Order: sequence, then structure tokens, then C-alpha cells
Amino acid sequence: MKGELLFGVNPVKESLKGTRGAYNLYVQTNASDHRVESIIRLAEERGVAVHRREKIDLTKMCASSHHQGIALEVEPFRYADLDDLLASIGAAGATGFLLVLDGIQDPHNLGALIRSAACAGVDGVIIPKDRACGITAAAEKASAGAVETVPVAMVTNVAQTLESLKKGGYWVYGLEGESSTSLYDVKFSGNCVLVVGGEGEGIRTLVRKQCDVLMSIPQYGGVNSLNASVAGGIALFDMARKINA
Amino acid sequence: MKGELLFGVNPVKESLKGTRGAYNLYVQTNASDHRVESIIRLAEERGVAVHRREKIDLTKMCASSHHQGIALEVEPFRYADLDDLLASIGAAGATGFLLVLDGIQDPHNLGALIRSAACAGVDGVIIPKDRACGITAAAEKASAGAVETVPVAMVTNVAQTLESLKKGGYWVYGLEGESSTSLYDVKFSGNCVLVVGGEGEGIRTLVRKQCDVLMSIPQYGGVNSLNASVAGGIALFDMARKINA
Repeated sequence: MKGELLFGVNPVKESLKGTRGAYNLYVQTNASDHRVESIIRLAEERGVAVHRREKIDLTKMCASSHHQGIALEVEPFRYADLDDLLASIGAAGATGFLLVLDGIQDPHNLGALIRSAACAGVDGVIIPKDRACGITAAAEKASAGAVETVPVAMVTNVAQTLESLKKGGYWVYGLEGESSTSLYDVKFSGNCVLVVGGEGEGIRTLVRKQCDVLMSIPQYGGVNSLNASVAGGIALFDMARKINA
Repeated sequence: MKGELLFGVNPVKESLKGTRGAYNLYVQTNASDHRVESIIRLAEERGVAVHRREKIDLTKMCASSHHQGIALEVEPFRYADLDDLLASIGAAGATGFLLVLDGIQDPHNLGALIRSAACAGVDGVIIPKDRACGITAAAEKASAGAVETVPVAMVTNVAQTLESLKKGGYWVYGLEGESSTSLYDVKFSGNCVLVVGGEGEGIRTLVRKQCDVLMSIPQYGGVNSLNASVAGGIALFDMARKINA
């Protein structure tokens, strides 16, 4: 296999609609519902070879039973170039809205955050190269195909990236449970960056220092803390609501 | 084994602090950080036997490698009795805030939703007996122990339960992507129930008919839809913010 394997109805469909090279579509032998049929049509339109496989063989290929009868061999995930991404936002004349993930470890959280970012109208997601989850097949699946619609850039140094974004006119808002500033009291306008930290550790010290505002989501129940992807989703949508108001 | 096995630092710690019977604590042979030590102390205070096990044996016992070196054998999960739950809310003289999950299939989503409910100050979570995920070990782990702090009741008929909640003075708010009413425009006060539907299907027809208000989360990005646990988290926190305003 020369590429990587995506699986599940949504990731495969979104990928076929996107610009990423696709080599082979694998469909479960007895699968024939309308969702599968529309994916086969998409593949045929793009000239992608379609192969039938037994369910058990798909499960082996995907190393998962959650393939929903469909898998697609695609070229490896192409990270966006950060400069190109920023240039494209400026060129459109709009204000920018970026999500920076400082060390998310779990592919389900990463995928869910990118999915939420797509729904909130974020222009791009920035993740670190080291000590963090990259765009794996599991992350793509959890994103429900959103990695095909929102550019994801990978950077070596998150703190330095934030520093240059600030020079470029972005305001940097970090989500941190300990902050006494409530998310709901923050006004967002202009070019915004939301920073969400990793599951256990939160935002790292050097990255935190680059945040113009640290803010928390008020908790009403006591003991527990929110899952990183839920906290990120709540912040993204509060920001989107205010930016689009 | 007479009980069920919980694993991971948070679920085990929260369980030992809760009221559920615990039989045996299993600790990885070489595990000795402060989190593990504090769990061992909790177990000893409760008179729970502590056993050392090799990492590979813990992985086998838990059928997962995500045990973080710790597992606890506890009595099976005890669902709350709905009548007792409602009576305890009324007795406290406060207004009620309930979350109804109409057919969540994925244990990670179920756990994350219960975790969010705990953080939003929800009094209880109601799930259906059939065609939905129950409180499995995976759901408990994803809840980060929140199933020990928020009562979860299981009901046979969600629509009938909503009908009687309405008779008892609750307003029922259903989250539905197609609704033209924005979540942000809804005022919440008094006794509130939030209904979140299953991952693929959303709220079922008979359940939808019992909703006083159907509302959606405005999307700013186009193609994608939110993950059920993120959508539920956004709605729970918007409601909590307004109820506590």
C-alpha cells in the first residue's frame, strides 16, 4: 500500500470530495445502501478503482471494526504551510480565526476539536510537531472528514508561532481552568487565536506567556473538569457567536 | 471476579471516594507516583485489599492498555431510581436541571456527556434501557469518575418519562440540528430538561413530540456537524450560564 487508509462513511466521503489524491476504494462485499452507493459514484467520477472485500478483510486492513463497510487508500495527510494559510486569510480580506492545540494526545480529542473548529468557522488549526498527536487515521475518523475542509498546519515551536501571529495582528486567547476571567465576559473581535492545552497538563508555560488573555469556563458542579474537546468546543462556539454577532 | 473492573487514575479515585462497594485494588508492580500512592491510601482507609500486578496482567484484566497502572474491582454500577432522584431535587427546594440522552451509542460520548453534565451542575442524567450504551467500564473511564457524582437513571420509555416530567413542572428542550430556533435565543429558567439525541439519528420522533422547544446550535463553517458530546456540552453550558445568571 503506497498511501494511508481512511475508513468510515464520513471520512471517506469528505476525502473523495476534497483535493487529496485517492488510489483505491474498498467496499464491503454485501454493502449496498444509498450512502455506500453515493461514495462509489464519487470514486468512479474521480477515476478511483473500486474493489469489493469481505467484512473480515476490511477489519484486518483497517485494524478496526469501525469501518462501516468502506475504506479508501489516499495519499498521506498533507499539512498546510502556515505562511500560505495566513496569506490566504489576508487575501480574502476577512479577519482570521485560528485554533492552536498545545499538546493534545488523544486522536479522538484531536479529531473532535478539528470537527468543532470546522463547524465554528475556524480558518486553520495549528498543532505542534512533538509530544502531541498528529493527523492519524483515528484522528481523521473522529474529525468526521473535517480535516479535509479545515487546513491543519504543524509547527516546531508553538510559543514562537504565537509570537509572530501577535506581530501579525492576532489576539491570543488561552483556555485555562485556573483563570479567574470568565470566557463569557471576554469580547472577541478582529483576528483571534484560541489556544487549548493538552488533556492532562493544559497549556505549557512558554505558550501561556504568549497569551494576551487567559480565560476559563465557569464550572457549576464542583469536582470534575471538562474533557479537552468539549472545553475547546464550548470556547470555539462562544467565540464564533461573538465574532459573528 | 464478583464485581466489575474500573481502571485509570480518575475513575478509580472517584469511585473510592464514592459510596459504591469496592472489593480489590490492583496496582502495577513498579507504579509509585503520588497519584497512585494517594489511591492506595484511600483504599486502605476503606479497608479495600491492595494487590500488585505486572503491567501485562493489568492490561489483560482490563482488556485495555489505558489502565494507567491501576484497576479497582467494584460492585456493578447502581442506576439511580428516577422517583428518588426527582424527590431529592424537590426536597432541596432548588429547581431541577436534567439531561436526557436519547440513544447515545458510543461509550466515550456517553462518558463525556456525563462528565460535562457534572461540570454544568446537572442534577441527574436519564438514559434509555434499550438501543443505547449503558454505564460500561469504558463509559465510566470517559466520564473521569463523574458517574460517581451525578446520578444516572435508566428508563424503559423516554417519551413517557418526559411526559411525566412535564406534568411535574419541567420544561423540555431538545437539541436538533434542523431547528431554526437558536440555542442562544432561548431563555432558560425554572426546572429544565435538555434532550440530546443519538449520534447518527438524533432525537427519535416520539421523544421529539414531547419537547416544548426544539433548538439548534448555529453553525458557522458549513459542511460538518458537531460530535454529539460536544454539541451536548455546548448546550449544557449555555443553559447553566443562563440558569445561574
